[in-house]
Amino acid sequence: MQDYAPLKNDLLLRALNGEEVERPPVWMMRQAGRYLPDYMTLRAKYSFFERVENPELATEITLMPVDQVGTDAAILFSDILVIPQALGLEVRLEEGIGPRLPDPINTVDRAMDVVQPDVEDRLHYIMEAVSMIRTELDGRVPLIGFAGAPWTLLCYMIEGRGSKDFSKAKAFCYQNPQTAEYLLDTITETTISYLKAQVAAGAQAVQVFDSWSGLLSAEDFSQYCMPYLKRIADTLAPEVPVILFAKGSWYALERLAWRTDASAVGVDWATSPEYARQATGGNITLQGNLDPSRLLGPVSEIRKQTRSMIERFGKDRYIANLGHGILPNTPVDHAKAFVDTVKEYRD
Amino acid sequence: MQDYAPLKNDLLLRALNGEEVERPPVWMMRQAGRYLPDYMTLRAKYSFFERVENPELATEITLMPVDQVGTDAAILFSDILVIPQALGLEVRLEEGIGPRLPDPINTVDRAMDVVQPDVEDRLHYIMEAVSMIRTELDGRVPLIGFAGAPWTLLCYMIEGRGSKDFSKAKAFCYQNPQTAEYLLDTITETTISYLKAQVAAGAQAVQVFDSWSGLLSAEDFSQYCMPYLKRIADTLAPEVPVILFAKGSWYALERLAWRTDASAVGVDWATSPEYARQATGGNITLQGNLDPSRLLGPVSEIRKQTRSMIERFGKDRYIANLGHGILPNTPVDHAKAFVDTVKEYRD
Repeated sequence: MQDYAPLKNDLLLRALNGEEVERPPVWMMRQAGRYLPDYMTLRAKYSFFERVENPELATEITLMPVDQVGTDAAILFSDILVIPQALGLEVRLEEGIGPRLPDPINTVDRAMDVVQPDVEDRLHYIMEAVSMIRTELDGRVPLIGFAGAPWTLLCYMIEGRGSKDFSKAKAFCYQNPQTAEYLLDTITETTISYLKAQVAAGAQAVQVFDSWSGLLSAEDFSQYCMPYLKRIADTLAPEVPVILFAKGSWYALERLAWRTDASAVGVDWATSPEYARQATGGNITLQGNLDPSRLLGPVSEIRKQTRSMIERFGKDRYIANLGHGILPNTPVDHAKAFVDTVKEYRD
Repeated sequence: MQDYAPLKNDLLLRALNGEEVERPPVWMMRQAGRYLPDYMTLRAKYSFFERVENPELATEITLMPVDQVGTDAAILFSDILVIPQALGLEVRLEEGIGPRLPDPINTVDRAMDVVQPDVEDRLHYIMEAVSMIRTELDGRVPLIGFAGAPWTLLCYMIEGRGSKDFSKAKAFCYQNPQTAEYLLDTITETTISYLKAQVAAGAQAVQVFDSWSGLLSAEDFSQYCMPYLKRIADTLAPEVPVILFAKGSWYALERLAWRTDASAVGVDWATSPEYARQATGGNITLQGNLDPSRLLGPVSEIRKQTRSMIERFGKDRYIANLGHGILPNTPVDHAKAFVDTVKEYRD
């Protein structure tokens, strides 16, 4: 790894390490996104994949929320669907609509044709971006790398687009459990290589996003999510702290905390801080969980809710964040009020 | 109320009443829906609101799953958005896309203009359908009436369409909590009149669907859902058994069971039977919770999962159902396998 400037703000890494902190670190999922006017300017000029594949643009976008909103961490600007791309699937992104895979996996044969690629080669531009971001950050805050969870990626690879229930993907798995296992396995191994490459290039923590795990029952989570999340976390740790976020899977918080080597688990806003602490038994750092819609309300309420959230989670072993990605129509000063409230917090 | 034939299959009412049963009753949310070929034939001939507003058509559709799949209850074929219609909002239904309110409530003034209508007059065709269905059922199985929950209706009335987060509706509430309270109050009173009219016309149980309550945090549920669900249940009971289904609000099962007069609460598939029983302390009938996607899998698995579900809930104080509406692409014989497995169940 290159030699980068020493870290000045290490709150995130200390919180991930379970150390006592003067106040919790704060960042926001999708913090380098559509709510930022400067991002919208770039979005008007470059296609989504131009922004993702050009290291200079990805760097510029990744740094925006650090400079403009003052978060305690940067998170790589990229997309979870680069892994399906590396696995040979075409991915289109229709702005304002969402991802579309025009030729999704619809047979067992096609699924069995998917093989693990040389991800460092296929996604070299991301590792270049990571390295460039670390240089540009100059030690101000740590850089979080990320990937989609195998289950969530499989959902897109079979369904071909966003869905409210991903019933096509689920039906495929229920009809072909062994093929599903092969696919999840291949995605998992690819993801591990990918995250290792991000870490080698300079990512100081990684988050795995299981955006659609909450569509599964607790038993299906055991089959389609847990083994793969665990393998990723257990392989990456302890070299790098791993954050697992299984949105909607409140029932899995206990397992994720106790049966994996993750340093933190994400909490969505339907799960109360008290429930999350109780389920995880206090042995892990929690991250979350303000309802992103709350940032559309009055600033006084944002400040009140944010303070209350910190008090309920407790300032230690805690990373202040939203319960899901920031909404595109969030006023920047509301995002800033959220971040500032955390930064002003004292016991 | 008219004099109808005595009930031959009273399993549902006995389960709602907490009585011991030889086997659990079974029905399916959206059982009179798009997976039935005969429904699709009518759908090709008549628009959605023709089907809802014509008592003969509504009766024919309501009886289809009783005749063709053998469920232990009929549920009125209608739509939750008849209440926003009765409140003066235009509602369009785009087949295959979903509901659209072209002129949703977007200001406080417009919200304050909403007044409680004479619902028996505005929705008389539904009470005619209820009465006609009871006559046609001839006592074979009981008829369930239903309404959307106030929060879910408010979501559509402000957002104007389906949404993955209803952030516009939520933002409106966060910005205008008193106006939201007025709207929820008005919807609640209208819903109570509506359900009373259904019961007077012959509905033998009623279900309230809070399809979008799971988008709220536990605290927001306290403000925007709980008081209204409670008022509806406590006003309707004990004249008629009330089933409350707050999808995604696993955190509210305890309150719904202990602090309302509901006879049953619905359970979605992300909530395990064990958790639901533990949270509700065994004092209430539970309804659910097979993942509707499971009906797209092999029949042998459907049978296995269904038997396991009954064993986990226990046969008493239990109504076998799906965890949400049956999916349009469900094969009829898969739905039948689900229903038959429950009907064949013996301790």
